[in-house]
Amino acid sequence: MTTKATAPDDTFHVFDTTLRDGAQREGINLTVADKLTIARHLDDFGVGFIEGGWPGANPRDTEFFARAQQEIDFEHAQLVAFGATRRAGGRAADDPQVQALLDSGALVITLVAKSHDRHVELALRTTLDENLEMVRDTVAHLREQGRRVFVDCEHFFDGYRANPGYAKAVVRTAHEAGADVVILCDTNGGMLPAQIQAVVATVLADTGARLGIHAQDDTGCAVANTLAAVDAGATHVQCTANGYGERVGNANLFPVVAALELKYGRTVLPEGALAEMTRISHAIAEVVNLTPSTHQPYVGVSAFAHKAGLHASAIKVDPDLYQHIDPERVGNTMRMLVSDMAGRASIELKGKELGIDLGDDRALVGRVVERVKERELKGYTYEAADASFELLLRTEVEGRPRRYFRVESWRAIVEDRPDGTHANEATVKLWAKGERIVATAEGNGPVNALDRALRVGLERIYPQLAKMELVDYKVRILEGRTGTESTTRVLVTTGDGSGDWATVGVAENVIAASWQALEDAYTYGLLRAGVEPTD
Amino acid sequence: MTTKATAPDDTFHVFDTTLRDGAQREGINLTVADKLTIARHLDDFGVGFIEGGWPGANPRDTEFFARAQQEIDFEHAQLVAFGATRRAGGRAADDPQVQALLDSGALVITLVAKSHDRHVELALRTTLDENLEMVRDTVAHLREQGRRVFVDCEHFFDGYRANPGYAKAVVRTAHEAGADVVILCDTNGGMLPAQIQAVVATVLADTGARLGIHAQDDTGCAVANTLAAVDAGATHVQCTANGYGERVGNANLFPVVAALELKYGRTVLPEGALAEMTRISHAIAEVVNLTPSTHQPYVGVSAFAHKAGLHASAIKVDPDLYQHIDPERVGNTMRMLVSDMAGRASIELKGKELGIDLGDDRALVGRVVERVKERELKGYTYEAADASFELLLRTEVEGRPRRYFRVESWRAIVEDRPDGTHANEATVKLWAKGERIVATAEGNGPVNALDRALRVGLERIYPQLAKMELVDYKVRILEGRTGTESTTRVLVTTGDGSGDWATVGVAENVIAASWQALEDAYTYGLLRAGVEPTD
Repeated sequence: MTTKATAPDDTFHVFDTTLRDGAQREGINLTVADKLTIARHLDDFGVGFIEGGWPGANPRDTEFFARAQQEIDFEHAQLVAFGATRRAGGRAADDPQVQALLDSGALVITLVAKSHDRHVELALRTTLDENLEMVRDTVAHLREQGRRVFVDCEHFFDGYRANPGYAKAVVRTAHEAGADVVILCDTNGGMLPAQIQAVVATVLADTGARLGIHAQDDTGCAVANTLAAVDAGATHVQCTANGYGERVGNANLFPVVAALELKYGRTVLPEGALAEMTRISHAIAEVVNLTPSTHQPYVGVSAFAHKAGLHASAIKVDPDLYQHIDPERVGNTMRMLVSDMAGRASIELKGKELGIDLGDDRALVGRVVERVKERELKGYTYEAADASFELLLRTEVEGRPRRYFRVESWRAIVEDRPDGTHANEATVKLWAKGERIVATAEGNGPVNALDRALRVGLERIYPQLAKMELVDYKVRILEGRTGTESTTRVLVTTGDGSGDWATVGVAENVIAASWQALEDAYTYGLLRAGVEPTD
Repeated sequence: MTTKATAPDDTFHVFDTTLRDGAQREGINLTVADKLTIARHLDDFGVGFIEGGWPGANPRDTEFFARAQQEIDFEHAQLVAFGATRRAGGRAADDPQVQALLDSGALVITLVAKSHDRHVELALRTTLDENLEMVRDTVAHLREQGRRVFVDCEHFFDGYRANPGYAKAVVRTAHEAGADVVILCDTNGGMLPAQIQAVVATVLADTGARLGIHAQDDTGCAVANTLAAVDAGATHVQCTANGYGERVGNANLFPVVAALELKYGRTVLPEGALAEMTRISHAIAEVVNLTPSTHQPYVGVSAFAHKAGLHASAIKVDPDLYQHIDPERVGNTMRMLVSDMAGRASIELKGKELGIDLGDDRALVGRVVERVKERELKGYTYEAADASFELLLRTEVEGRPRRYFRVESWRAIVEDRPDGTHANEATVKLWAKGERIVATAEGNGPVNALDRALRVGLERIYPQLAKMELVDYKVRILEGRTGTESTTRVLVTTGDGSGDWATVGVAENVIAASWQALEDAYTYGLLRAGVEPTD
């Protein structure tokens, strides 16, 4: 462990491969625009290298390199092109795939090389010597063309176990041909930290090459494997945002850099970057269209969430008793969960978090606990719907619900036409400020039609609604094994440009549950906007 | 690393705390019936100890112990009650909470003890000496009553850093008072493997106590931390199924036992248990009502899923080239993902997996690749909807879609009544076997009403439909930031008693997308039932 320096330099590389290896994750399918957005986030975060893809092998990646260099003014990161060593029996200088790497304009190139003898023979179908020559020739050619070269030794650890001499010969060949870093890859992810540490230490001593690590998470140890390699002397870590990657995934960038900065005291990111980690993690999840993992270390919404009554009592004394770091260091926050396990201490802390003083009113806290229990039994979840919880809490504190409008009834119709298009129409009947309102609207779906009808009806009376927008909508069917006859829970996130809030609805059908969540969403939005209740 | 023995014995403990510590996870709320079901699954899997909860502190846990001992005939596991050392200033023999542990009937008791000096003073508000006396007195009392005692040293690693002498004194006191195992807990989860290994080795040497490890996953290293403790001599590992637990979670039982069995060659489970791991993991997820993590090591549906075209080509040569273990050893299977990144090799393998020979028809494979690309661009995902993919594939192979019915139009109405109830009505107009069918049905929601109307209309013609049932229904809004106006993707899982299949629908609204998925679901169900297409 080193002492904290002031800024990262070339002696340690944080190398991100979200755009190349991360995109192999099941469910991810990136457009060029997605890749550009993610590259911007990664550069903001301050990684040293962004591997953008395989130009020449994939037209989308070729386009990405062209546009990234035109459109992005990288502040911290260097763009890296990924590709394979030249074909067996040819010359690197004549290889069109190698030329495509040069044509990408990237000044840094990662070459993937086979280092497991069996893979050379079975998958590459060439000789062990020719594979070494492919490494040497390709690295040397790219160096002659003025590029910095990193070499990924695929399946290095399995290869080392099968034939350590050959695996090391690949490292030595790459190093001697001019590769700056040789990366040992646990491609199938089967290794454990002790194995990684021993092999990295030996290879470092035997070859003298600068080493990097690329770990996959198939044993659930990719973060630890990455750190074990660093402990053994590796100075280049390849990771992906949120651990995205093939099969189980890759070493997750965020816990790796957090461990290096917070536990090792090593500076690997620009100053202030770590405090942006939670935001960057969620922003990237949004681009790839995956729900951010709630239980991801450091950055998950649950990472500093406390539920146990025992812990909540201790946290009232001192938050550090149950947290390994201050969540603000990684841009996250502590949360008290509202749940029937939590008990009074949690409700009191939650009230404080929301700025509602419950004082010493034990009867009031008891009523809130009861009400939460009763609603959670029906399927509501307040852990994920802070705004609905705040409305519930205020109802108990103020003795009656905040109300800006009263619903008489509503109706939604979805009709499939023979031509394949759909008609969606909703009608709402409401009362607000003593006035009866009947509004009808169409939408691209029944919930959208209801949402519009509600706004059409209320916007004249509450112009504040114009700024509000539904930003996320989630449906969960409770009690799995009964299909469409189960209870439905809808979580809606609404934003007004300055913040987001989440509300929940539970009903026997998705439309009714959505309606409840919408009612809470606009009620909370009006409360948040400082509008006085009228009813 | 030891050699493989024939069956687990008391020399190594696989200790599960899903029902106690795992239940602290955000989103989990277990009933007594849930706990009994999970206990049965864990016993089936063959863990040595099942920590069931804290009897006396929680009425649900008290009831669980009473019922578990009556209703479950444990084959492998011993039931463990969890509780705290006696109160400061009292006697264990007079402490009602300690008595509740004895009253639970559990023959094994885990006591949680403070081992961090600051926690003793701040949270427990007693002296360091009295805390040692609380440990000694409580362990001795439970031993006198014939119980086996394990002691969890809460916050051990932080405590050791702050005051190693005191932390070790707690271990020594518990050991000398008769505790069989003293468990070192990384309660706030902030440790890394190298730290765990060093501390466990020192404490083992200095105290002579049998040691266990309890790791939380806040650094993303809980599995590696658990293995590091084993490397240092711990012979008792505390884990939770699927890593459920407070904040980020606990050490995940499944990768821990898989590493011990498959990587260390150590027998820690009954013979054959490991091959049930995937099933048990998913069954427990179902009970706690959380979607099984798709990317969980060993047991996730993606854990052996291959997407990259490069990998797919290699796997055609030899599956072991890209897998660290044979997935069948943990009850999982290899899957080829269908995606526009996958290319021809994946489509061919996928066809083989489905038993559809695509032969050497390159034009056909090309058409399928094109069709998948085009549909995925619209939001369809075939990775998660094998049945819809098979219908697409058969359409290309057979030159026309399988069709059992033709839809003229449909309509769904949801109406909220002033009394708070809802009316859901759907009408479908269909053609099947040359007949025009108009059917109307009510349901508890619009999708359910449509599902029923479809069945009402078709069951007379296809009696096979009676056996089919919707078992899961998932909604995902694509393109996050535009709220209810986005595209909606619905995934439906349907079962017929002998198996499940998944279908996908994508449309601008949830009802239309659901309808598409339902159409595919029943079409595939009839295909699966061997019914000849009629149209």
